[in-house]
Amino acid sequence: MDDDFNIAGDDVFRGLFWGLGSDGTVGANKNSIKIIGEETDNFAQGYFVYDSKKAGAVTVSHLRFGPDPIRSSFLIRKANFLACHQWVFIEKLDMLAYAQPGATFLVNSPFGPDEIWDQFPVEVQQAIIDLELKVYCIDATDVARETGMGRRTNTIMQTCFFAISGILPRDEAIEKIKSAIKKTYGAKGDEIVQLNFNAVDGTLANLHEVKVPDKVTATMTRPPTVPAEAPDLVKQVTALMLEGKGDLLPVSAFPPDGTWPTATTQWEKRNIAIDIPVWDEGLCIQCNKCVLVCPHAAIRAKVYDPAALDGAPETFKAVDYKAKDFAGSKYTIQVAPEDCTGCELCVRVCPAKDKSNPKHKSLNMAPQMPLREQERGNYTFFLDLPEVDRTKVKIDVKGSQFFQPLFEYSGACEGCGETPYVKLLTQLFGDRLLVGNATGCSSIYGGNLPTTPYAVDENGRGPAWNNSLFEDAAEFSLGFRLAIDQTTKAAQRLLKDLASKVGDGLVDEILLADQLSEEGITAQRARVETLSKKLEGIDSPEAKTLAHIADYLVRKSVWAVGGDGWAYDIGYGGLDHTLGIGRNVNLLVLDTGVYSNTGGQASKATPLGAVAKFAMGGKEIPSKDLGMMAMAYGHVYVASVAFGAKDSQTVRAFLEAESYDGPSIIIAYSHCIAHGYNMSDALDHQKAVVECGAWPMYRFDPRRTAMGENPLKLDSRAPKISFDEWALSETRFRMLAKIDPERSKRLLEEAQRVVHAKYDMYQQLAKLHYGSDADAETN
Amino acid sequence: MDDDFNIAGDDVFRGLFWGLGSDGTVGANKNSIKIIGEETDNFAQGYFVYDSKKAGAVTVSHLRFGPDPIRSSFLIRKANFLACHQWVFIEKLDMLAYAQPGATFLVNSPFGPDEIWDQFPVEVQQAIIDLELKVYCIDATDVARETGMGRRTNTIMQTCFFAISGILPRDEAIEKIKSAIKKTYGAKGDEIVQLNFNAVDGTLANLHEVKVPDKVTATMTRPPTVPAEAPDLVKQVTALMLEGKGDLLPVSAFPPDGTWPTATTQWEKRNIAIDIPVWDEGLCIQCNKCVLVCPHAAIRAKVYDPAALDGAPETFKAVDYKAKDFAGSKYTIQVAPEDCTGCELCVRVCPAKDKSNPKHKSLNMAPQMPLREQERGNYTFFLDLPEVDRTKVKIDVKGSQFFQPLFEYSGACEGCGETPYVKLLTQLFGDRLLVGNATGCSSIYGGNLPTTPYAVDENGRGPAWNNSLFEDAAEFSLGFRLAIDQTTKAAQRLLKDLASKVGDGLVDEILLADQLSEEGITAQRARVETLSKKLEGIDSPEAKTLAHIADYLVRKSVWAVGGDGWAYDIGYGGLDHTLGIGRNVNLLVLDTGVYSNTGGQASKATPLGAVAKFAMGGKEIPSKDLGMMAMAYGHVYVASVAFGAKDSQTVRAFLEAESYDGPSIIIAYSHCIAHGYNMSDALDHQKAVVECGAWPMYRFDPRRTAMGENPLKLDSRAPKISFDEWALSETRFRMLAKIDPERSKRLLEEAQRVVHAKYDMYQQLAKLHYGSDADAETN
Repeated sequence: MDDDFNIAGDDVFRGLFWGLGSDGTVGANKNSIKIIGEETDNFAQGYFVYDSKKAGAVTVSHLRFGPDPIRSSFLIRKANFLACHQWVFIEKLDMLAYAQPGATFLVNSPFGPDEIWDQFPVEVQQAIIDLELKVYCIDATDVARETGMGRRTNTIMQTCFFAISGILPRDEAIEKIKSAIKKTYGAKGDEIVQLNFNAVDGTLANLHEVKVPDKVTATMTRPPTVPAEAPDLVKQVTALMLEGKGDLLPVSAFPPDGTWPTATTQWEKRNIAIDIPVWDEGLCIQCNKCVLVCPHAAIRAKVYDPAALDGAPETFKAVDYKAKDFAGSKYTIQVAPEDCTGCELCVRVCPAKDKSNPKHKSLNMAPQMPLREQERGNYTFFLDLPEVDRTKVKIDVKGSQFFQPLFEYSGACEGCGETPYVKLLTQLFGDRLLVGNATGCSSIYGGNLPTTPYAVDENGRGPAWNNSLFEDAAEFSLGFRLAIDQTTKAAQRLLKDLASKVGDGLVDEILLADQLSEEGITAQRARVETLSKKLEGIDSPEAKTLAHIADYLVRKSVWAVGGDGWAYDIGYGGLDHTLGIGRNVNLLVLDTGVYSNTGGQASKATPLGAVAKFAMGGKEIPSKDLGMMAMAYGHVYVASVAFGAKDSQTVRAFLEAESYDGPSIIIAYSHCIAHGYNMSDALDHQKAVVECGAWPMYRFDPRRTAMGENPLKLDSRAPKISFDEWALSETRFRMLAKIDPERSKRLLEEAQRVVHAKYDMYQQLAKLHYGSDADAETN
Repeated sequence: MDDDFNIAGDDVFRGLFWGLGSDGTVGANKNSIKIIGEETDNFAQGYFVYDSKKAGAVTVSHLRFGPDPIRSSFLIRKANFLACHQWVFIEKLDMLAYAQPGATFLVNSPFGPDEIWDQFPVEVQQAIIDLELKVYCIDATDVARETGMGRRTNTIMQTCFFAISGILPRDEAIEKIKSAIKKTYGAKGDEIVQLNFNAVDGTLANLHEVKVPDKVTATMTRPPTVPAEAPDLVKQVTALMLEGKGDLLPVSAFPPDGTWPTATTQWEKRNIAIDIPVWDEGLCIQCNKCVLVCPHAAIRAKVYDPAALDGAPETFKAVDYKAKDFAGSKYTIQVAPEDCTGCELCVRVCPAKDKSNPKHKSLNMAPQMPLREQERGNYTFFLDLPEVDRTKVKIDVKGSQFFQPLFEYSGACEGCGETPYVKLLTQLFGDRLLVGNATGCSSIYGGNLPTTPYAVDENGRGPAWNNSLFEDAAEFSLGFRLAIDQTTKAAQRLLKDLASKVGDGLVDEILLADQLSEEGITAQRARVETLSKKLEGIDSPEAKTLAHIADYLVRKSVWAVGGDGWAYDIGYGGLDHTLGIGRNVNLLVLDTGVYSNTGGQASKATPLGAVAKFAMGGKEIPSKDLGMMAMAYGHVYVASVAFGAKDSQTVRAFLEAESYDGPSIIIAYSHCIAHGYNMSDALDHQKAVVECGAWPMYRFDPRRTAMGENPLKLDSRAPKISFDEWALSETRFRMLAKIDPERSKRLLEEAQRVVHAKYDMYQQLAKLHYGSDADAETN
């Protein structure tokens, strides 16, 4: 078969555009193909290739247009126009394999026309020369930054495309682009439209043709997709999938039993951050808040014995640990430079400022490229430092962040508001954790191919993770619980039966173990290890069975995880049943107030007045009070948390929920790109939603009822800013104010009324007297 | 085909037993076949034929046994033993068509061996003589009453069967019967076992062989199954189904378009009551409470012009109406003698006593048979009396019961606690009512073949009723709402378009009509009628379309109806969604606290400590607080009612729910045979469940919030009896106290604690201050 066979005529434009999910490449290309199809005599076609990963995965746009109808119902194999919208792809993807001789190659590059040639690896230079490509470059990232577009380079690259391709006269093309911008972003506000206009206007001066030498001058070759130390399967299968060549894999390449390795995001090294945080260790107050907020586990803290610093790279930073719990230890904050997405949340949360220059903090963003090599080495050294002794840590915000995250470098959007909660779960409960995941963002970034963010500890053990359906995560997790409880019972029975052989002392210790603390768990693990060794010496079917299931004598932690689409809507029937049935299952609701994964449809969690799909005129009904509904049971632990507003309350709620021997639900406020603001500002938005009263924080613990106390503790204060002050800072609310100001005003007033009444009610509920007074009335 | 072809040998016993659902015939026969199969050398077989109707439908038990293995995998066509367990079947069913020559015929008869022959109709006498049957009779109903068994005649009839059939020596048979009784009823308490023992012991002295004359002496023939005035379809199809001959109907007998008539229970005339209420009009205080509590709409009240009494039957009773609203009118309470099931609830609720003899009330039970003819005539006359003018009635308990019930004589159990609510719905909202019914008891008695209890008014109009699935009644009803609203909007649009032809005045009146009262509705109906007439004269497609849908200009009332299995468990996800979405759908939960229809499985409504299937050791978790969960929305009207405890609150809640332009839910306490007590005592149990606090009554009306008031009104008082005092009066709780007294004690104490804490919370919630204080804190 001739892969290069091409039936399209030479008069057909065939363009390929490589972008990064959420950088706007696909959207801009959709606009381009509409402009060409509608405004010129050309026939036009667009195919867009991307996977279900969140922002940050590769997207490829295939655009065809020409004077005759286009009947090529397949992707482009050879293009006469290629655009690389992210510099990082130059060393990752073999884009020029798709170039036909004489094609044009447009590159978004931090290097100018004079420097860029020397930055191309051998393979790229060779292809450019061999195929006689025309090369153009622009520092679109810089233009975007200068024109206030932040990291959105799509309009700039689109303008370059029109300028180079000449399909329309330049002025006309620019006019059309602007009118498409107005159509696409008009509803989101004039400001966004104007920023895009500025970007378009600032583009052409920065677009340059690159002079191509007549021979290869580079010495650097493109690095392998995954490093040599990666496991075989990752090298032979995952790597090809990462390169976009998964279709070429034969069935025989896959594990015959369907097993798929976890902990593989570490081999992906996306390098998508333009800037990464740099630690100024002198200013650091060692609070670990940066570690907690990081959505990608790309900034970490360790406390360790000074001796471990032997052989540290020269640039590796370490300071004396300040607190008393690990007195005499060293302390390091380390960034994973190639896994960081540059979201800035760690810098934003950092409370340590240089008093003489308050803009300078203990963490500050700096360009990644110059730091990459050095920090890669530092990070490798950091990972090899010993993990903390779990039994010696006081588990609060700071302590929890010394625990190894077993959820790392996921494909979640940069700045994601959900993943810090998921990461925290894995830190607190480690390999005892079993997750039943509802379909949604958390199942996509949690379990997408080709890489898996759920990771393993130094012993190769990690959380068990499973995704069933959208609607049944709660029941599915309840199934875990029932199966575990049965197996534990069976193990306990066998243990008793074998007491004479195993030794009564050990049996009693195992059966009566208190496993509520890390110390208790660790001690039980040691006992079970002793047991396992003893069982090896006992030749009976009972001993063999017990050996298989002895691990179930260590307490497990079962969590159902999902979004508000699952918890409030589609999976609510089962969620309620799981709460109602009274077994020890924990439910974590990552509440973005919208169906984030499918593109922003309204859920019952969507706030009154917010615009979402199916609620384009602003939602008319207040968000459902899922917490109150769960509290109505009385026997359910319920917490409402927002880590951006009060991280200590979040950690506390997770620990309380897990230790409660009954059903628990944590409703976790999660900021999201669907809310419409820069994710680097997300923590301020979390604070505001709590301060305006729209997100009361509380913990309802049935254990308090049993002691005659009020089970409800309100952890947030009465509203101190207006509902508007929060709401109108987010596009989802602001859109309505623009389209229909009167309706917006009415809904926001109503929302303020509802929010205050609800807060008031919570406040009064938290003050209710509990105890035995009602009994007295009977007598 | 020879229908009488019989391959079984003469040594095979073939017995047919006709009983009434819930009279215990099937259970006793199951015991008999077990005794014979296990305790003798015989092979044995039992088939039991009955439909999905509730207590009160015909059951037929087919029992075979003999010395050889039984391979007859079909029902018995010719029996050598036939038992009629209910006298009423003598004139209804052609049982002797199944008798082989020389067979034995055992009859439960109110007539003794000397009188019974004269009570048989011609057909029965003829068959007995022709087939040379041996006839036995016993007044099992009398024996049951005398031995404290109430209406349960099964053990008595079983004893007769063993005595006559001679399959075991009498003494041995009696011993086996008693041991089977102990096995079957042991868990329900010693008292029930002893009562059954007494019944067995009291049986043989009352069993008599009947001397059969050698010729027919009767003049009376078996009446037709349905009267001559019934519609054709009822006569040609329904009647055959009622006779148990539905299988013989050809397909051509059924309406080709699948239409099935409503209002057909009126033709069934089950005559299953042994005693019926008799009105002592002199004592009556005209409260209409008897009418409200009747599960079968078999006791009714009318207020009417004295002139309407012209031509009344001699025994027809009427008194002067006492209240001022219809001064000068006559008033009658009338029983439907053939539709009454004899449950006694009307007598129990009657507050009017003879002071000199407090046992004598304005309603008193008396044997039905002597009254049947007379009261049939009186009832026919009563039905023809004019219906009350709906616009002139003050709608409270009394007023509502002057409205014609459009749900009558259903197949619900005698004393059913659900049907009074359903009946009330039809009285209050008449033909404007649309019901989406969840599967369960209410769908079985609501829409079972061959007869339909949903009825029509004098204009032939009635509620629209539909049953979709168990799990989706709420969404299904929401669909009604959406469709109605769309159609109403379409009608309003057409009306405006046609304004010039129809007349602006009428158009405005229709569009702006206030339809919240009966007066408003009636006025709107009149306007729509005027409109329809005008439309006839307009020749346009718009006018034709509007004529089709003009009825949608009259306000409709949409209700989802189902049990707690639907509302708390299987359909809860959709129920919640329907509440959450904010449309005007009303939900009526008939809460028996158990899956009644499928045989008593635990639901999330089952109270803590009650025994149910899947909770045989007593339920460990308190019942779910569905009301509180619905109130958490804020925009949902929520009521908790118990008509047996406070009927006025029930009527009020129904009216408020319906008039609220948003979602409403009424959680209606429904006593049930599954609770384990005599249904004639049910109203006392309803009072007790409220008095102990386990069923708080309240109404939460969002319209009050809008006025700055507390939306919650608590309609019941603080607990004044202990939880035990209520619970231990019902078998579902008492069973556990017998099996495991310690556990029972623990659970009941816990239940009391939970119930009091919950009541306390409701009480404090109802006192919460509402208003704008929270706003103040912001400023």
